[in-house]
Amino acid sequence: MRKLHKLWGSKINTLLVLSLIALVAFRKGPSTEKNRILPNDKVVQIGIVVPDIEEGIDKWVEMLGLEVRPTVSIAAGHEDNPTQYRGKPSKAKAKLAFINTENIVIELIEPMGDEESYWKAFLDEHGPSVHHIGVNVKDLSEKYVPLFEEAGYPLVQHGGWDGGEYGYMDSQKGLGVIIELLEHYSR
Amino acid sequence: MRKLHKLWGSKINTLLVLSLIALVAFRKGPSTEKNRILPNDKVVQIGIVVPDIEEGIDKWVEMLGLEVRPTVSIAAGHEDNPTQYRGKPSKAKAKLAFINTENIVIELIEPMGDEESYWKAFLDEHGPSVHHIGVNVKDLSEKYVPLFEEAGYPLVQHGGWDGGEYGYMDSQKGLGVIIELLEHYSR
Repeated sequence: MRKLHKLWGSKINTLLVLSLIALVAFRKGPSTEKNRILPNDKVVQIGIVVPDIEEGIDKWVEMLGLEVRPTVSIAAGHEDNPTQYRGKPSKAKAKLAFINTENIVIELIEPMGDEESYWKAFLDEHGPSVHHIGVNVKDLSEKYVPLFEEAGYPLVQHGGWDGGEYGYMDSQKGLGVIIELLEHYSR
Repeated sequence: MRKLHKLWGSKINTLLVLSLIALVAFRKGPSTEKNRILPNDKVVQIGIVVPDIEEGIDKWVEMLGLEVRPTVSIAAGHEDNPTQYRGKPSKAKAKLAFINTENIVIELIEPMGDEESYWKAFLDEHGPSVHHIGVNVKDLSEKYVPLFEEAGYPLVQHGGWDGGEYGYMDSQKGLGVIIELLEHYSR
C-alpha cells in the first residue's frame, strides 16, 4: 500500500512537472501573431524594374503566349497618400503593367523622369531585376510599418492609389529582397 | 423562288467567307504551345542569393514565424548531370534552404568557395538579391533549352540532383529576371 501510494505520488509529480513545462513552452503558442512579423505567408506579387516597359511586356507576352496584352498604367502618387521617398515628399512616377500567372502577379515597373525613387535607384544600381515581393496586410501604416522598423527594416518609400496604399521596406540585406506591404482598403 | 435562291446563295457565301476568316485567324490557335515559350504559367520558386544562409534563415524564420527551421542541403552537382557554368565543367557548390509559403517556395542560396558560378557571380555583383524564378518543365534539355536559346535567352548554368535537373537561362535583360527551368523526372 505504501508502494502504491509512492507510485501514485510520483505520477502526480510527473504530471505536475509536465504541465509546468507545457505551460512555459506554449505560453505564447507556436507561430501566433506575437512571434512573426508578416501576418500571412502569401507572396502576391513579384515586382520587376525594367528600363522600357513596352519591351518588357513584349518579352513576357512572348514567354507566356498572353492573348491579351497587359495595359500600362501610371503610378503618380495620390492626394490621400502622397508619395514619400526616404522621408521626403517625392514626385516620382512609374509606368506599371501587371501580368497574371497561375499563382502570382508579375508587376513590371518603368521609373519615369529624373525624380529619385526606390524604383529608379534600384534600376540605376542593378539594371533590370526583381525589385520586391508583395504581401497583403491590413493596418499597413499603423501596425506593419512600425513592426518592420522595430525588426530593422525601415520604410523607404510609401504611397497610394484610389483604394489602397503601399510601403517598400528595406529588407534587402536581411531577407535578400525588399518586402512591399500592400493594403487594399476595400478587401 | 429566285429571291429565296439568292438569299440562300448569299448565306452560303457569307458562311464560306466567315469560315475562311476563321481558318486564317485561328490557324495556330490562340496561345497554343506554338506561340509561347514556357509550357505553363506557374512560378514555383523564387531563388535568392545570400552571403550567409544561416543568417538568411534566421531572418525568414522571424518574418514568417516558422515553427520548423528549414534544413540546409548542399548542391554539389550530380554524376548524371555534371554542373556546367558558361559551357565549362564547374565544381561550384552552394548551400540551399527551402522555405514553403502558401503559394510559392523561397529558395535561399549561399554560394560556397571560390569556384565561379551564376550564384557567385550574381552575389558578387548585386549582393543579397533575387537570382531567379523557377518554372517546372518536361524535356528540359531537349526541348526548352533550345527554345529559350532561339528566343535569345542562352543557358548559363546547368546541373542536376538525384531525380532532376535544372538550367538557368539568361533572361535578365529581356524579362528582368533569370528563369530557372526545373525538371523533376518522377513527376
